[in-house]
Order: sequence, then structure tokens, then C-alpha cells
Amino acid sequence: MIKVGIVGATGYTGAELLRILCSHPQVEVIAITSRGDAGVPVAELYPGLRGRVDLAFVEPSVGALAACDVVFFATPHCVAMESVPELLAAGKVVIDLSADFRIQDAALWERWYGHAHTALDALKQAVYALPEINREAIKTAQLIACPGCYPTAVQLGFMPLLEAGVIDTASLVANAASGVSGAGRQAKIASLFTEVHDSFKAYGASGHRHLPEIEQGLNGMSQTPVQLTFVPHLVPMIRGIHATLYARLTDTSVDLQALFESRYASEPFVDVLPEGSHPETRSVKGINTCRLAVYRPQGRNTVVVLSVIDNLTKGAAGQAVQAMNIRFGLSEAEGLQQAALMP
Amino acid sequence: MIKVGIVGATGYTGAELLRILCSHPQVEVIAITSRGDAGVPVAELYPGLRGRVDLAFVEPSVGALAACDVVFFATPHCVAMESVPELLAAGKVVIDLSADFRIQDAALWERWYGHAHTALDALKQAVYALPEINREAIKTAQLIACPGCYPTAVQLGFMPLLEAGVIDTASLVANAASGVSGAGRQAKIASLFTEVHDSFKAYGASGHRHLPEIEQGLNGMSQTPVQLTFVPHLVPMIRGIHATLYARLTDTSVDLQALFESRYASEPFVDVLPEGSHPETRSVKGINTCRLAVYRPQGRNTVVVLSVIDNLTKGAAGQAVQAMNIRFGLSEAEGLQQAALMP
Amino acid sequence: MIKVGIVGATGYTGAELLRILCSHPQVEVIAITSRGDAGVPVAELYPGLRGRVDLAFVEPSVGALAACDVVFFATPHCVAMESVPELLAAGKVVIDLSADFRIQDAALWERWYGHAHTALDALKQAVYALPEINREAIKTAQLIACPGCYPTAVQLGFMPLLEAGVIDTASLVANAASGVSGAGRQAKIASLFTEVHDSFKAYGASGHRHLPEIEQGLNGMSQTPVQLTFVPHLVPMIRGIHATLYARLTDTSVDLQALFESRYASEPFVDVLPEGSHPETRSVKGINTCRLAVYRPQGRNTVVVLSVIDNLTKGAAGQAVQAMNIRFGLSEAEGLQQAALMP
Amino acid sequence: MIKVGIVGATGYTGAELLRILCSHPQVEVIAITSRGDAGVPVAELYPGLRGRVDLAFVEPSVGALAACDVVFFATPHCVAMESVPELLAAGKVVIDLSADFRIQDAALWERWYGHAHTALDALKQAVYALPEINREAIKTAQLIACPGCYPTAVQLGFMPLLEAGVIDTASLVANAASGVSGAGRQAKIASLFTEVHDSFKAYGASGHRHLPEIEQGLNGMSQTPVQLTFVPHLVPMIRGIHATLYARLTDTSVDLQALFESRYASEPFVDVLPEGSHPETRSVKGINTCRLAVYRPQGRNTVVVLSVIDNLTKGAAGQAVQAMNIRFGLSEAEGLQQAALMP
Repeated sequence: MIKVGIVGATGYTGAELLRILCSHPQVEVIAITSRGDAGVPVAELYPGLRGRVDLAFVEPSVGALAACDVVFFATPHCVAMESVPELLAAGKVVIDLSADFRIQDAALWERWYGHAHTALDALKQAVYALPEINREAIKTAQLIACPGCYPTAVQLGFMPLLEAGVIDTASLVANAASGVSGAGRQAKIASLFTEVHDSFKAYGASGHRHLPEIEQGLNGMSQTPVQLTFVPHLVPMIRGIHATLYARLTDTSVDLQALFESRYASEPFVDVLPEGSHPETRSVKGINTCRLAVYRPQGRNTVVVLSVIDNLTKGAAGQAVQAMNIRFGLSEAEGLQQAALMP
Repeated sequence: MIKVGIVGATGYTGAELLRILCSHPQVEVIAITSRGDAGVPVAELYPGLRGRVDLAFVEPSVGALAACDVVFFATPHCVAMESVPELLAAGKVVIDLSADFRIQDAALWERWYGHAHTALDALKQAVYALPEINREAIKTAQLIACPGCYPTAVQLGFMPLLEAGVIDTASLVANAASGVSGAGRQAKIASLFTEVHDSFKAYGASGHRHLPEIEQGLNGMSQTPVQLTFVPHLVPMIRGIHATLYARLTDTSVDLQALFESRYASEPFVDVLPEGSHPETRSVKGINTCRLAVYRPQGRNTVVVLSVIDNLTKGAAGQAVQAMNIRFGLSEAEGLQQAALMP
Repeated sequence: MIKVGIVGATGYTGAELLRILCSHPQVEVIAITSRGDAGVPVAELYPGLRGRVDLAFVEPSVGALAACDVVFFATPHCVAMESVPELLAAGKVVIDLSADFRIQDAALWERWYGHAHTALDALKQAVYALPEINREAIKTAQLIACPGCYPTAVQLGFMPLLEAGVIDTASLVANAASGVSGAGRQAKIASLFTEVHDSFKAYGASGHRHLPEIEQGLNGMSQTPVQLTFVPHLVPMIRGIHATLYARLTDTSVDLQALFESRYASEPFVDVLPEGSHPETRSVKGINTCRLAVYRPQGRNTVVVLSVIDNLTKGAAGQAVQAMNIRFGLSEAEGLQQAALMP
Repeated sequence: MIKVGIVGATGYTGAELLRILCSHPQVEVIAITSRGDAGVPVAELYPGLRGRVDLAFVEPSVGALAACDVVFFATPHCVAMESVPELLAAGKVVIDLSADFRIQDAALWERWYGHAHTALDALKQAVYALPEINREAIKTAQLIACPGCYPTAVQLGFMPLLEAGVIDTASLVANAASGVSGAGRQAKIASLFTEVHDSFKAYGASGHRHLPEIEQGLNGMSQTPVQLTFVPHLVPMIRGIHATLYARLTDTSVDLQALFESRYASEPFVDVLPEGSHPETRSVKGINTCRLAVYRPQGRNTVVVLSVIDNLTKGAAGQAVQAMNIRFGLSEAEGLQQAALMP
């Protein structure tokens, strides 16, 4: 059994980790920390875990995590970077779900996050854990940086096109939409039911922190420099991300459906839908799958990709467990094989 | 492996059976029938099952079910009664999720359902599968009649009070509310998103078909005759039933919390919450648990019980699998141990 | 033109007042106060009012309200009682939408609200503004206390039965459900979209502050003392209250439909639906109407009343404007004649 | 008083017409037709109109509309074209909310709608009623073709850019999202609450009927030919359209905010938000306003426009009433001045 600790499990990402890990046959969660809720049983915050998780939150400390093989961080940015170096020194595998180690260029990170990066040595060894492109590196990584939710959906959607070099990379568009759980479990008026229900809007149109992460990833897949316009939107639903991607084809002879199917043929968590399909976010509710469809409307030279994930699962906790499975030599899908909750 | 057939799996109850059974370690689903969708892959109707269920629907026939150990009916009423006698004669165990075999008194059934009951012999041997009261009988039953969703929530809520004989049974009230999946997967204007979203209403206030089933069950637990006023309501949510139960205490000295906790101490799927709790339907989303809380407001002589289930799980498919587990000597919770999807 | 001031208009009740009053032909809103948002244009908080309300919030003070004929308080409890005596002394008509002046018995108020009542003289002259029972007194009142949302729906539902003396008043039940706007515009985790969407629960089952207000009102209509069990629930919708009321008939010969129709025949804002109807909260979305239906299920001796209002309109701001119309001798429906937004 | 008839008022567009017109001070609705529901009181289908609209549906016929000054068609496509020539011959003004007369090129219409166009003479005289570009022609039109919902939001968003000639028209992108009322009041499984709630998806990605209408409109504003990629999405909300528009700037020196503000300075129903705003669909719920915001993310050469309307109001019934007001010489905003329902 792999002994797991979770730092910062009061948020939705942490709760999703618990939901997945409490049914994972090779894992024992032994410590869950929270600065604000130490002493509180987990099931009090998340009644859905009553009878499944009997632990209470403890104060965060490296000592509390001493017996762990792997420590997950499900914290706001700037928290993991404080403790990770010490945990790495103690030989722990660290899987960080926050933004701290996603962007290799520390200066770029600091510009978008407005803080100094205080763990530059750790940053250098961090492996960006999008398994579909980085599986080998994850197998031996000690510090695993999980991709953001939007970046997962957008990168998986553009990947076949960029690797094949069939689109103009100078002006990509990613129009994305997320459920409200992406805003986290924080008391904000803007996230009240009464403020978001039965409505729809864009946000962060002038610049969202996931943009540099996405562009870093897309550039890694492309021979030519990538420039992306990324506009996120807020959907009155709890979970789910839908990315609608637009690019100009430079090679209109390519069989787009075949390109996507072949790229993902052996990927356990990427599902290319039949031609003419429209993936729905509910079809991945609570599961680790990304479903994709590709279109060339009116036979013109614009390609459209539709990409859906559950932001808390493939976009966060599920992908983190997938990375853990890879890192510890388990079957990649262990503990991740439920069917989506539908309806 | 238990070989399973499902009749009528295009509805939500059938889809939920598939979702649960495709992860059940002791089960192999070998046949799924549908009159209207024969030939269609299941995953086309339910994209959430893509990659998990590879079967296509087949025409319903006793032959198609010949290799099954157990056949589930997830059909509208009046369908199971046509085929069940033949399946029983062929030695199959039948688990019926419809209303056909829930009410022992055929005349009463006919009055509420407006049809003649055509399988009276089968009806006589049917076992009403609320495990919390009928576990022993289920172990040897050949025909298992699964309770309705409202009846499950209401009976589990009143059970400790009626068995203890501490309430006036002449005027019970069950005010219940259900998610829209209770209306099934049928093209009706009244179930359109635009007709039920962001609104709330009662329905069936003059009489709902679950009333006679509930009263039959409550009378079975009570020494004195029960009369219930039952008003269901429609909540703009997909899954979940919440029952708020009211009764006049005839014995005000009883420790209600202790009564409930002791009654359900050994029940794997009934969770009595701590005093002062309010169970939320989302805390049982996708799982087989009923959560209960009990109150005596202002210390007066009215007792209030709050009872929540997922109408598709404990209220239908989950309870059916629980009954199957009991019937086939498996651990009662096999395949039913996921945590609720929350948030 | 009646000159209007609003104190505390950053909440939903205040915003609803503005929405109604900005289309009211006899009203000019001249001052809107807010302690926290002074200087902010109203339309910035409520973009739905852009182009309709050009005022900015100002610091609350009696001076700011000097030119007003009438001052509405849309504040949390304990705020109005601080300023109301001075405004009354200045000759203003005050219409209070908060709880401060709803309960005549100050000791009872203090027990439920946990504060000392500091405006006892004002309390004595306050008129409880449920027009359907108190219209005459409103016409000359200087201090008008608007009923709470639940109390409005529950009192209008029980009124014909209590006035006619045909029910057992010792054990009434009011099972009520509210949209989330009832919780106000406050940054609380419990009101986040992610916490209430796609779920349903009771709250305040051990005792809700609207109970003493309701019992005070019901006792005023009844010859015999009333005891009510009141359990509110939270519905994942923005607006609307639905009350389902239960009572035991002491006179089973009464024609319930006729009783209700005759009681409300001349009421402009109470609509008794035809027999067999189920009022939906959406049918009163944004309007000042209460719609009622009455049932006697299975011809037994329990009467069931279904009552819906919009909690922000008939349950708050609309009823306040109705009271203002009455007080200032306008047509009672002035500014309140829109049709409900449906779908 | 203008005497109004409505053909096909059982759908949501027709109901919205009734909601608006029943409060319009210059209008009397005298006939409402419906083939399927003749004899049924309107308020039975739309309880929100109880007490506001006392008419019952009548069989559609030119005779039933004989006393009307203006006839609105709120019908599926192919219905209006059957009766319109006769009504025009009878001297009626016709305002068609369906697709029949929106596209000038009959062959193009026939390709996208799959039917022969049977009213070519009428089509020639139809005036496309987007007032912001066609106000003068509407003043004297006898046949007024109201724009579709998506076309309204998209055209108003691109209009300033195209008229100014500052974008590359060869590859525009319109990523749009609609509430479910856009699918109409038809009994379809795909529109059930249980199928669309808490989920998000694209639809019609291979080609939507609004595309040719939009391209026709955009070409009318542009000096160079326009090619648009248009992908609509379905949002789990009742009303509202949000269009997110992308274009490459050919002139990066233009002050985009000033361009938009100046273009719409005198338009009563187009509201350009301050820089940095994100229009929400709820801010136009039930009203005839289009709200816009314009961005140039990261100072790169892609312009992003955000455009919201209520699909049933500015996207259908409200815009139709606006056209009627223009046509009959009334104030353009008559009957259209309510504030949005928010929250």
C-alpha cells in the first residue's frame, strides 16, 4: 500500500482526491492537513465522504507527513513552494496540484502570479505531468507538477494538430468554459448561487493565468512559435470544462479524424468520439477521461476541436492519481475506472 | 461471475444499473434489451458509459436472456408482469424495479394503476425488497420487487418510530421532493429544462401511486393502522429525494436520536446523522446510502424526520443490486462502496 | 411624485425595490444609502439596472433622507431600529422590510433575534403590513413593518381556514421551500453555487426566526391558539417560495375551493387556482402575486394548501410597494402589474 | 391602440410577445392563434400570464386576423410563408419572427432549410429588421423579417469593426452559447432537464442554420467578403445568448473602446460597457438590450468582442416589438423599458 498525505484538503480539489483515493485499492491515506480546520473530521466538511473517510484534518507540518510515500498538495499557489524542498530532501515524492511548479520560466511565473518564486531548485527538477506527452519523465520524477484544468483540455485538443504541423500557429483561439467548482471553495460574492445561476459570462478576457502555461505546453509540441487567444467563461454547472479550439489549417489534405484517432489510440484516458459527435461535459462527470471531437465546418480551412474534461478529475485530482500510478509502477488506470455519473 | 440481463435499459434506472454493474467485481452483464433501440450501442445513448459498456441493445425475448442467472426489469409498469412468469418457470431470479409486484393486494394495485394485474401467481411469491426490514426473505426469493423511490425514503424515515410505537399513526404527513430524473427519460413538455429549471412545485397532490405502497409498508411496521398524507414536489435537480416526515408523538419521553441510531446501527446503507444535522441530497449522489436526521422542534410533541436518498441508486438501481448481493450470498455492499460525487 | 429613499440597497431586497420603483409612474427614488459601497454607482453592483437607475450609493444618514416622503429599510435586523425613531420624528413614513418591527412582543423578538430591542415606542405604533388582513391600518400608518417571506406565504395559505374555524389549530404543519436569494447577498460558503446547486435540504429544522412571526399572525386569525411546526428547505433556484400546509379538518363539510375563492375574490394579489392545479414558483417570478391551491387528498380529513410567492417581490419589495401604494392613496397595483417572466 | 394578432403563440417566442405586449400602453392584442390548442385559455399554458391575458387560442385563419393592424408570426419555419401573401394583400403589416424571410437569396435559404420557398414575391419586399442598421427601411416596411437570436448578438458585436474596416474578414470566429429556451417548447428528449442540466456542449458544429443569415448580414456591413466560423453551444440556463467574437486586426491603431461607444452612442438598446467589463446574460434577462464589451488581449492583434442578449427578447419578441414601434411611429422604447430581473 502506498502511504499518502494530502496538504490542503479542504478545497474541492482535495475533496476530489479523497473521493478517488478512498476507493483506490493500492493506497492508504494516512494524513490530511488543513491550517484552518485542524481537528475537524473530514466527513463534517464533506458529508459525501461519511463512512468512507474517517480521518480528521491535522495541522500541516513536515512531521505530520513523515510516514508518507507521497504527498499531494491541493493548495492555493505559493503554499507548496514553501514546504516542497524540505519534503524532497526527506525523500518524499511530491505531487503538486497547484500552479507553483507548472511554469518552467520563473520570471514568467512571477509576472503572472505576482509573487517571487522561492523554490527555484525544486522548480528545475519538476516534471510537468500531462501523461499523454510526458509519461516517461513522470516514471522517475520526484516532483510532479500537475497541469491546470484549462491547460489539460486545451493541450489535449491541439496536440495532434501541432505535432503534425498542419495548422498556422500564429493565431490560435481557445474559447473555454468551466463549471463553478473551478473557482474553488471560497466565500466570495461572485461565486454565490444567486450570482451565477441561470447566467453565462466570460471572465479574465484580458488575461488569465492559465495562458502562459498553455502556451508553454503548445510550444513544446510545435515546430513554430505559438500565439494563443484564450477566453474562459463561467457556466452555471458544478463540474466540467469544455474547450472549443479554432485554428487555420495550413494543410487541408489531412484526414483530421484519422489523425486524432491514431494519436490517441493507446491512451487510456483520451477518447476520440466518432465523426459528428459533440462531447458533453456530463459524459466525463467524475471520471478521468478527456473526450474529443474534431470538425472542419463547411469544408473551409478552419479546424474546430471540441474537448471536454471534468475540471476536478482529469483537470486536477484524477490526473494527479494517474501520475501517481505511473510514478509508482501501478496500472495507469488503477482506481480511475468508474463510469461517469449520468444522468 | 453472476450473469446478468437487463430488460428496458434505455431509461435512467437502467442506465444506473449499468453504471453500477459495470464496476461490480462479481457480475457480468451479458444482455441488455430494448424494444425501441435494438442494435444501438448502449454507449451511444449514454456516452458516460463509453469504454465501460461495449454491449448493444437487443430485442427483448426470453431467449435473449436464456444464459442469465438473474434478470433485472427496468421497465414501465405492466411490462414485467408479461414476461416474469416465463422467466420464473425457466428458473431465473427476477429483480423487478417497476411497480408490478410491489403491492400485495392486486385489487388495490389495479385501482391505482388502472390495469388488470396479469401475473397473480407471481405476485404471491414476490418479496418486497427493502433489505432493512426484509433481508431474510430476500435471501431465498426468486421474484424480488424493488421498492419505489419515495417509498424507500419514507419507510426508512418512519420505521424506528412505528416499530417503537411512539407516534399517532392516524395522521402522518410525508412531504417529499424529488429530482427530475424521477420522471424518467421520456419526451414530455412538462419535463423540459425550460419548464422545470429555476422553479419548484408540488405535483400529484390529489393522489400519487406511491401512496398505497408506502401505506402497505408502514402498516407492516405498525401495531395500529396508518393513514398518511403524501405530497410529492419537483426540485430542479437531476437526482435525489428528500422526505420530510411529520408525526405526533404519543410518547414524549423517548430519546429519538438514540432510537434511530440503535435501529440502524448494523445497517450498511442507513446513516443516522448527528443531532442537529440536515442531510443534503448531494451527500448521497450516486451512492446507495439513506441519510437520516430526527428533530423535535421547540420540544413540542411533533417529531420531524429528514430522509435523503438518491432516487436512482438507493431508490432504484442501487437497492436492486443490494438485493442481488443478498440473494446471491455476496457481501451486501459489493460494488456499492463508492463515495458520493461532491461537489 | 412620491420622493423615496432606500437604506441598505446593496442586498437583493434593495435591488428588487429599485427594479420595481424605477418603473413606478408615481415615484422618484432620490437617495440610496449603503455604508460599505458609498460612491459606487448602483448599476455597477446591479448591471441589470444600467440605464434605468443612475444614482450612486451615499453614506446613510438622516440628512441624506431629508427630502424623502418615505424611507424604505432593506437592511439586516437591528439596523432600522437605530434610525427609525428619528425619521418618524422628522415626519417620514417608514416602510421597514427587515424583522425589527414585525413582532409585537418585544421579549419574544429578543429571544429569537438575540438582541435587545432599542425602539420600543416605535414598535408600539408599527403596523404589520400584510394588506390582505391589515389594509385599513396601513392607510394611516407611519411605521409599516413588512412581513417576512415565509410568513407571507404561510399566512395567506392558512387564512381562509383559520378565519372560518374549520381546522384543528393545535398541530399545524408548514413545510416550506425557498430559493437561495432568501439567504441574501453575503459571502458565505454555504451559499456558494457549488454548495447548493443540484441538491436539496432542510435547514433550521430546530427553529427558524420566522416561526414566532407566523404564529403571531395565525393566532390573530384564529379563535383558538395555534401551534405550528415549520420546516424550511433550500431549493436550487434563485427566487420563489413554496409553502405546503397541512391541517386536520374539524369540519369536513366545508367546500374548500369555494371558501378560498370567496375569501380572496377582491384581493388584487392573491390568485386562487382552479381545482386540481399545482402552483409553480416560476408563475410568480418577479411579480407581486400569491397563487394558492387547496386539496383534500383521498377525501380524508387532512387539508393541504399549496402557496407560492416570489420571496423578493410579494415576500419583500413588492409587498412593500403595495403597502406604499395603500399608504399614499394610489391604486394598490400601481407599478406592480407586469406579467411573470416565464419561461 | 394598435390591434395585434399573434400566430403560433404556444411557443416561447409567442409567450414572450404576450408578456411584453400585455403591458404595452399602445397595443391591444385581439387574436392569438394556435392549431393545436384552439379553445385553450392562454393562461392555462402560461400561468405567469394569469390575470394579465384573458384570451383563448383560436384556430389560425386569415379571417380571425381580419381586424388586426399588425400580425406577428411566432411559428416554426415554413408556416409564415403560407399565409403572409394573403395578409399582405389584405393590407396588414406582418412581423415574422421565424426564418422564412430573413435570407434574401432564396436558393441559399432552400439549401439550409431543406424546403422550397413558396413566397418569393413577399421575400423580395421583406425588410430585415435589425434596427441598428436598417431603421429607415423598417419605418415603411409592410413585411418585417426579424433577425434570429444568434444573428442579432453576432451582428451587433462585429458591426463597428466591419463598418470601420479594421479586421481581416477572411476568418472570423463566432463562439456562441445559448440558453435552452432557444430550442423551443417541443417535447424532445434532448431538451429534457435531465439531459442538459449541469452540463455544457457544443451543437451544430458542422453547420447551423443561422450561419448564412449571419454571413449575409456581416457582408452587408463589410467592404470585403466575410467568412465566419460559427459554433453554437448549449448552456444550462433558460434565457440568454452570449457571443464571443474573434477577429484579426488589420489596423492595430484603432481605439476599440471609442469605436464601439461612438457607433452605438444613440442606440437605445445597445449598451457598450466600460473597459474591462464582462457582460453577463442575466444583466439582460427579460429586456431588449444588447450589452457589449471589447478587448484586445495581451495587446496582440486579435480583437475579442463579448455580446449578450436575451434570446427571447432582443433575440426575438422584444426586437419584434421594437420594429413595430418604429413601423407605427411610436417611441422606439415604448413597452420595452423594464429593468432586467436580477438576481
